Amino acid sequence: MRDVYAIGIGITSFTRLEFPLSEIAAYPVMMALKDAGIKEIDHLYVANMGGARVNHQTGLASAVVDTLSLTPAGAEVIENGPASGASAIKQGFLAVASGMHDVVAVTGAERMREVNSIEATEFVATLTHPLAEYIYGVTLPSLAGMFTRAYMEKYGVTSRHLAMVAVKNQNNALLNEFAHIHQAITVEGILDSPEALTNNPFIADPLRFFDCCPVSDGGASVILATREVAEKTGRPLVRLAGIGQATDTHCVHEREEPTDLLAVRRAAAQSFKMAGVGPLDVGVAELHDAFTILEIVESEEVGFFKKGEGHLALERGETQIGGKIPINPSGGLKGRGHPVGATGVAQAYEIVLQLRGEAGKRQVADPKIGFTCNFGGFGNNVVCLTFAREN
Amino acid sequence: MRDVYAIGIGITSFTRLEFPLSEIAAYPVMMALKDAGIKEIDHLYVANMGGARVNHQTGLASAVVDTLSLTPAGAEVIENGPASGASAIKQGFLAVASGMHDVVAVTGAERMREVNSIEATEFVATLTHPLAEYIYGVTLPSLAGMFTRAYMEKYGVTSRHLAMVAVKNQNNALLNEFAHIHQAITVEGILDSPEALTNNPFIADPLRFFDCCPVSDGGASVILATREVAEKTGRPLVRLAGIGQATDTHCVHEREEPTDLLAVRRAAAQSFKMAGVGPLDVGVAELHDAFTILEIVESEEVGFFKKGEGHLALERGETQIGGKIPINPSGGLKGRGHPVGATGVAQAYEIVLQLRGEAGKRQVADPKIGFTCNFGGFGNNVVCLTFAREN
Repeated sequence: MRDVYAIGIGITSFTRLEFPLSEIAAYPVMMALKDAGIKEIDHLYVANMGGARVNHQTGLASAVVDTLSLTPAGAEVIENGPASGASAIKQGFLAVASGMHDVVAVTGAERMREVNSIEATEFVATLTHPLAEYIYGVTLPSLAGMFTRAYMEKYGVTSRHLAMVAVKNQNNALLNEFAHIHQAITVEGILDSPEALTNNPFIADPLRFFDCCPVSDGGASVILATREVAEKTGRPLVRLAGIGQATDTHCVHEREEPTDLLAVRRAAAQSFKMAGVGPLDVGVAELHDAFTILEIVESEEVGFFKKGEGHLALERGETQIGGKIPINPSGGLKGRGHPVGATGVAQAYEIVLQLRGEAGKRQVADPKIGFTCNFGGFGNNVVCLTFAREN
Repeated sequence: MRDVYAIGIGITSFTRLEFPLSEIAAYPVMMALKDAGIKEIDHLYVANMGGARVNHQTGLASAVVDTLSLTPAGAEVIENGPASGASAIKQGFLAVASGMHDVVAVTGAERMREVNSIEATEFVATLTHPLAEYIYGVTLPSLAGMFTRAYMEKYGVTSRHLAMVAVKNQNNALLNEFAHIHQAITVEGILDSPEALTNNPFIADPLRFFDCCPVSDGGASVILATREVAEKTGRPLVRLAGIGQATDTHCVHEREEPTDLLAVRRAAAQSFKMAGVGPLDVGVAELHDAFTILEIVESEEVGFFKKGEGHLALERGETQIGGKIPINPSGGLKGRGHPVGATGVAQAYEIVLQLRGEAGKRQVADPKIGFTCNFGGFGNNVVCLTFAREN
């Protein structure tokens, strides 16, 4: 297998974007090509979940190639629910590692604000089991709510811990010009103030408004290439060193221990093994905080903290920028936003930026190893990536 | 790059199937695993275009893994319009060739008859350009009609040539138990009989009913693996020897010569080059005859016949089973049917069957090299595969 490097990155603002989906997908590729100092690619992967349903657009990958005048490069759309982004990066890795292509662009994009929040929630619910969950009205917030209640009872996590994740990530997002949410909040403000029940209503008890990520438009891109191409860029060498992926039962209620996220555990372990590092070597991580509880649980399952102790590490400030293991310096899904297909690529964008030392006000102190966890379904299909700075 | 072999194949009937999409995708994988004599896979790729829109199902790949109890194998949906199937096979190839995985299942599935023909046509039109084609009501049949008229005027193709493709492929389909259309037709019957205008009405002049493939449900699967795994099966060794892919302008009207299919030409040339063979080495081919004209034009662009002479070779019977280069012995999209995401995988199914000598009544005489052309968009993104029998 050939080594594969992330040689260029690009991103759009994550907000409401009044551009067609194909342009939201294309724009960050232009930025990433400029960042890498190259003009041509061999192949393109586009991560997207909602094009056919929400935007009446299929064949999106061919449309993006055309928009960028990159024909005759081949292209595909990769869909793995909310983990589409990391799955597309995996395909890009395989294309370069195999020797088939030397330079591959990966872009993730979603244009979800074309529909309202209820329709967006309904759309995302199409990733649940068609016969055992979807037809009964199960949504992702409802699954997350039940999961959160069970976790609180078992491990002593409280609403204040959940709020701490929201506060940390929204504060980090204040330092990210591309983030969807630019709103400073405090634990007291969203939990204890007289307005809390109005401004932070319950969405799926015990999850409240500020525990859920927003519905966003946006795109992000990473260019992957061989070492030979990477060296020519003269930029810091960031290698995609490890990839892990695992599925779990499609129905959450079929899991032996419903508070475990086995697919996260397996995908992370695989990714670290391939990279030849351990979780404690990680200097910066982007975890999939579609709901605040997920950041806490993932921080345990990937091995940063012991099972059931993620909320204690959070309390101690260990996941802050400047802490032992900074999590979601970008703002995460909670603060940066969650255009579904773009999220996994945006996580990689942040890690490459951090490993290069180019993250400005939110720069983590000199990380060598970066890690992303992109969570498909409700932990049905998880992809974890490990990046390593080499010079 | 490691060599990659097709070690198992499976297919459903292509017709109206009253099963959920996830089961249509899963069933042929079961058949293919049985065919290969194995029970486990490392990864799954699912080719599908309409799940989110037509079937309210996303995260389909995770659902299929779960249906087959193949967790924790990772999985993704691959979408490249009507060429999703061959694109998914390409991803499977890369996963094995790179050394990442040893055994990968690829399945293609579509459940289109959930909606009526008009809605299905509207859905397929979502692969046209969103701003320059789709919003003006352009559909695939309308693009194909204009293309056909131009081709007839330039190269002397007549309605009788188009009908000959339909007759050949529907007759071949009579020999395929899994084919959607089991109806014997003749050129005279569909063109000259008093009932022809009623039974074979114009869809998009000059294309008539029998020039268009049906709207089908169905699934097909191919298992790809290393040579080491392939040898253990004790079955004929069929290697996936060549892959080519190319895009063209998204808008058909932007092409310099609108009667050329440059992406077909480029993808075929790449595929042959990688396999180290030429078009005249091919013993059996499956071309993408969504409209009868496409089989004629593709047979030229891939190099079987000179440009503008495909209809003459057809007239001479060279593309019949038993002819110089048998095309679509399975019945093609016209006869076997066209469940969009399944088609490219079904083409590979037929080629593997033929190269093994297991195609029964429609067996082509001892082919050593087989070829597929899977046509995405209206030639926007084409994937060609070359298979070689090694023993």
